[in-house]
Amino acid sequence: MNILVTLDQNYLRHAQVMLFSLLVNNPGERVCLYLISDDVQEDDLAPLRRVCDAFGATARLLHVDADWFLDAPTMRYYSRAMYYRLLAWQVLPQELDRILYLDPDILVIGPLAALYGMPLGDRLFAAAIHKGIIDLSGPVNRIRLAAYESDGYFNSGVLLMDLQRARREMKPEDIFRFVRENKSMLLLPDQDILNGLYGERIAPIDETLYNYDARKFREYLLASQGERDMDWVMTHTSILHFCGKRKPWNAHMGRFAALYKHYAALAARYAGERQ
Amino acid sequence: MNILVTLDQNYLRHAQVMLFSLLVNNPGERVCLYLISDDVQEDDLAPLRRVCDAFGATARLLHVDADWFLDAPTMRYYSRAMYYRLLAWQVLPQELDRILYLDPDILVIGPLAALYGMPLGDRLFAAAIHKGIIDLSGPVNRIRLAAYESDGYFNSGVLLMDLQRARREMKPEDIFRFVRENKSMLLLPDQDILNGLYGERIAPIDETLYNYDARKFREYLLASQGERDMDWVMTHTSILHFCGKRKPWNAHMGRFAALYKHYAALAARYAGERQ
Repeated sequence: MNILVTLDQNYLRHAQVMLFSLLVNNPGERVCLYLISDDVQEDDLAPLRRVCDAFGATARLLHVDADWFLDAPTMRYYSRAMYYRLLAWQVLPQELDRILYLDPDILVIGPLAALYGMPLGDRLFAAAIHKGIIDLSGPVNRIRLAAYESDGYFNSGVLLMDLQRARREMKPEDIFRFVRENKSMLLLPDQDILNGLYGERIAPIDETLYNYDARKFREYLLASQGERDMDWVMTHTSILHFCGKRKPWNAHMGRFAALYKHYAALAARYAGERQ
Repeated sequence: MNILVTLDQNYLRHAQVMLFSLLVNNPGERVCLYLISDDVQEDDLAPLRRVCDAFGATARLLHVDADWFLDAPTMRYYSRAMYYRLLAWQVLPQELDRILYLDPDILVIGPLAALYGMPLGDRLFAAAIHKGIIDLSGPVNRIRLAAYESDGYFNSGVLLMDLQRARREMKPEDIFRFVRENKSMLLLPDQDILNGLYGERIAPIDETLYNYDARKFREYLLASQGERDMDWVMTHTSILHFCGKRKPWNAHMGRFAALYKHYAALAARYAGERQ
């Protein structure tokens, strides 16, 4: 199982929690983690490697050649790193045919084998639609998503990628052009690119299973007429995603705060950072 | 690290969650679990043994010879199993010198080495005082605890035992006599015996570290003037105890419900009971 994270140094410790939770919840899987970063150095990875060692997983740090982004338009607030997720196939070893990208603000709480092995057909990606989080009624958003007629908006935080197909069919120029043409309307660049340019090429996955928005317990419960209660979540959901500004590593008293903070402490212990 | 549980078949799956949480949170410890039960059979232990195998732990089932309790007074609602915790030294292998008894409604969320290794001096036990849970103002309770002048009441759910000292100094007759003499006043028999007969022989441990009452988050937070918030708990507390009637395996929407239910699901997966 190949896992991808793209991050800067500030998020490394959160990615470590995500990775630890993935490993505890997927015993028996051979996990290879690929990290793409501009500022993380090999030395920074010692704690994360101790987590890997405890579970027989491997981690490999990849750097991106600056030349590859000479043609990339930049946007205020965003570095070229915003491209790493969608262009990871350029940097990843050629022999990899599939990889699962995961945001660092994720907690894996169940098995990932079914997601990882799902048939993609002729799609490039699999991702979950997050309903109702983005307000689609505003003028900016209507324009922004005009090209993509859909009843939802794919969240790019959990993204299964067919790398072989991506190498054949994706072109950096397409992405750079899309950014150039829509620059003023992109609010969440990587996610907007994914939806705007590749919305039709994404196989949908169930958000309550693989991209559960940790803010939306009540909404999921109501929408399922009471079925998706805490017992359901804890026996069915595999990926909890702490979307939004309030992160569980800061003060955060949501229903899943204790669970996240416990994993953070436990990961730190496995990483040798705490008693 | 020797761990003791005394239980009937209904509690076996909860003990399995407790054991799993203990093992995940104490990597590198050699854990030997001893189970004392009247109705659990060797065959019932297959799932629990798979959990043990995943962490290199061992489990041993001990049965109690009925003859040993010929002199034991019985009480309505309580079987002779109420004696197993305090008289475990009679059944446990002679070579064991120390054991940590843990209730099955416990979740271990941190390291136990410091507790397990604590010096007991001339005490028989270590346990935590639960303040304010038992109403000591009622006449029954005043009588009940008359022999034990203290500002608290030891909870018997986490009980470190010096087995060598117990073999030398504890006598089943003392316990049986205490029960006979106080029968009408015993509400929580094993705990009342522990406090009434051995209250002076218990080394106190910090309840917020090793016997955190999961119902009392607010009380601990207030009593500590805000210090013991969720971050503190998740980096300091090693044992969460789901005291009281509302158990997290039933509907239970406390702050720690997600954490408990996650561990229950994960333990079941390691035990081979679920995908």
